[in-house]
Amino acid sequence: MPVLVMKFGGTSVANLDRIRRAAKRVGVEVAKGYDVIVIVSAMSGKTNELVGWVSETSPMFDAREYDAVVSSGENVTAGLMALTLQEMDVPARSWQGWQVPLRTTSAHSAARIEEIPTENLSSKFREGMRVAVVAGFQGVSPEGRITTLGRGGSDTTAVAFAAAFDAERCDIYTDVDGVYTTDPRITDKARKLDRIAFEEMLELASLGAKVLQTRSVELAMRYKVKLRVLSSFEEQSDSAGTLVCDEEEIMESKVVAGVAFSRDEAKMTLLSVADRPGIAATIFTALSEGGVNVDMIVQNISEEGRTDMTFSCPIDQVRRAEAALAKARSEKALNFSELVADTGVAKVSVVGIGMRSHTGVAAKMFQVLSAEGINIKVITTSEIKISVLIDRKYMELAVQALHDAFELEKAA
Amino acid sequence: MPVLVMKFGGTSVANLDRIRRAAKRVGVEVAKGYDVIVIVSAMSGKTNELVGWVSETSPMFDAREYDAVVSSGENVTAGLMALTLQEMDVPARSWQGWQVPLRTTSAHSAARIEEIPTENLSSKFREGMRVAVVAGFQGVSPEGRITTLGRGGSDTTAVAFAAAFDAERCDIYTDVDGVYTTDPRITDKARKLDRIAFEEMLELASLGAKVLQTRSVELAMRYKVKLRVLSSFEEQSDSAGTLVCDEEEIMESKVVAGVAFSRDEAKMTLLSVADRPGIAATIFTALSEGGVNVDMIVQNISEEGRTDMTFSCPIDQVRRAEAALAKARSEKALNFSELVADTGVAKVSVVGIGMRSHTGVAAKMFQVLSAEGINIKVITTSEIKISVLIDRKYMELAVQALHDAFELEKAA
Repeated sequence: MPVLVMKFGGTSVANLDRIRRAAKRVGVEVAKGYDVIVIVSAMSGKTNELVGWVSETSPMFDAREYDAVVSSGENVTAGLMALTLQEMDVPARSWQGWQVPLRTTSAHSAARIEEIPTENLSSKFREGMRVAVVAGFQGVSPEGRITTLGRGGSDTTAVAFAAAFDAERCDIYTDVDGVYTTDPRITDKARKLDRIAFEEMLELASLGAKVLQTRSVELAMRYKVKLRVLSSFEEQSDSAGTLVCDEEEIMESKVVAGVAFSRDEAKMTLLSVADRPGIAATIFTALSEGGVNVDMIVQNISEEGRTDMTFSCPIDQVRRAEAALAKARSEKALNFSELVADTGVAKVSVVGIGMRSHTGVAAKMFQVLSAEGINIKVITTSEIKISVLIDRKYMELAVQALHDAFELEKAA
Repeated sequence: MPVLVMKFGGTSVANLDRIRRAAKRVGVEVAKGYDVIVIVSAMSGKTNELVGWVSETSPMFDAREYDAVVSSGENVTAGLMALTLQEMDVPARSWQGWQVPLRTTSAHSAARIEEIPTENLSSKFREGMRVAVVAGFQGVSPEGRITTLGRGGSDTTAVAFAAAFDAERCDIYTDVDGVYTTDPRITDKARKLDRIAFEEMLELASLGAKVLQTRSVELAMRYKVKLRVLSSFEEQSDSAGTLVCDEEEIMESKVVAGVAFSRDEAKMTLLSVADRPGIAATIFTALSEGGVNVDMIVQNISEEGRTDMTFSCPIDQVRRAEAALAKARSEKALNFSELVADTGVAKVSVVGIGMRSHTGVAAKMFQVLSAEGINIKVITTSEIKISVLIDRKYMELAVQALHDAFELEKAA
């Protein structure tokens, strides 16, 4: 039978009623003849609670223990979903990561999927199981310890299963009915996109649109997994949601597809770094080894052999960054006068594949922000996006102004 | 190095502060030179929450999914405890049941421990790990699915580890400072016992004293595990708590050691059962196969080939009992007129090894209850205990009156 992967995020399984609603959606697909692999997140709020406990217990936690703790939320949902399906007379059982087994690297709390053997699930499907409910976000390391894939890893789990089982489609059920030009909570002018290119989606996801995890989109692009984002709270037609696809398949074509933002950013500046060849490698190797996800990087013009190096990272990694750089200072002879952390910043980006063929997008963006009196702290650009770091208090204002200026409320 | 097993129940790990306090106790024993195996329960309330979700989702739940869900609470505590110990610079890591592996039967939700191979933990101890924090209550079946040992199974886990690792002692930390003559929440005259015989403890535990799980005491008796119950909330001396030991080691010797009770009982009566040989076997085989833990059994005198059969079981198994008996009625030709469930009863018992050599304990018990106007619904006796089923509303009164009458507030 054809396989369908359905993934339900935290808000879609937030309580028993919502799990029942999600299970009914699964039942509809089973009735159509699919063998279904359901990937579930933890009930919304649960993972944050667990992460909070870990961080309070041990600010520089052992990531292996972090993984053992935070993975438990998905196990609960997987079991409850299987039970709910059984109550609907749908043959179902739950699978934890180590039971599949979903094999990952040993990079705890940010593990990468290495292999998903299909034997165990396939043999159960052959025996009559119609739904395998898999705890998302987790796997097992070569050492037999539990790993997690990083926040939002359930999307990645879903796409990886869709690739491994050659699924007909991977439907990501979430609390929004598709991908929007920006977060509708910021402006009610936000408009749902029927289709979006993989590349645009990648920029939106990594920049904080929070609809799909970046790695899941990368994986879908690589393995040509049909990926659909849709709401678990609305009646669904076959054309519901947003299809994430190749750019050739997109008819509408605006210069800017959306405005993304990320609230939880920190701007870190290393002052007066000795400007010698290899210095950037030293700094960012140290940060990488310290488990810091560096995003934007800006190096100021050198003066008398010294330079300032600025980078951004998630706000909850500031302590890691400080520790990693202190270690590099003592062990790797990294020479700098001071490390300044600005934890009051946010990132706002405009994204669109149309930028490749249109000029003036950056200029227009800066004009709009300037007109609102918003100071730009850092700028980075890529082929299809322009990002700025600004004071967090202006974030909503910036997003609204840019959404208006690029007329994103109108279809192309 | 000698091995010590320390078990912390739900109230002893109810929040991060209490986990820290428990970890400090562990640190004291590590400093004494022990390699410590810590067995943890879920934070208090967590398992009930999970059980509640499972029951609401599926009243006649698939026990395999039940186990997958409810075992998650212990995983959280194990990870947090390991992190807390690491913060105290004590080399520690967490182990889930399947990682040890703690091998059990496939009797989901009531599995029995089959084997605890010591290689994995021992090799880590040799490498310098000082504390293995093991999630209690859970194991793994031959099929590779998660099992649980039944409520209170963490005590059993602790004793089983103490036996497997030939531990010097098994300390059970709980929210009381030892075993009392009755629950101090019922009467403030309850007195802590310094020592109690394994057999008395078995009766007290199985009758609902809730200090130690029955199977853990059985296991301790069989493998000669030194078992100590003590409070995690008080400063400890080496003589703290209650030692559970052989009756020969007990100096004080009262006729009655304690008054136990169980609130969550149901009295089930099969009316007008055909009284033929093998009928009891048919009934109780059906109940056993239906997963019902039958406690008291009373058969009334037969009249014209018919009899009434009464038994008690935990109140949350009434539906299972009804289903099992309905099945036996249709499939096994079990003939009865009606099944009456009385879910408003409680069990009260007096326990003491001294009863073996003293008469009149039963008569005194019945007089005391009669004087309080309490009607006795069912009576059962053993060599060292007398139990009665009464209306639940009289339970506290009965316990207090019996405690007074047998002068349990006074030491022997």
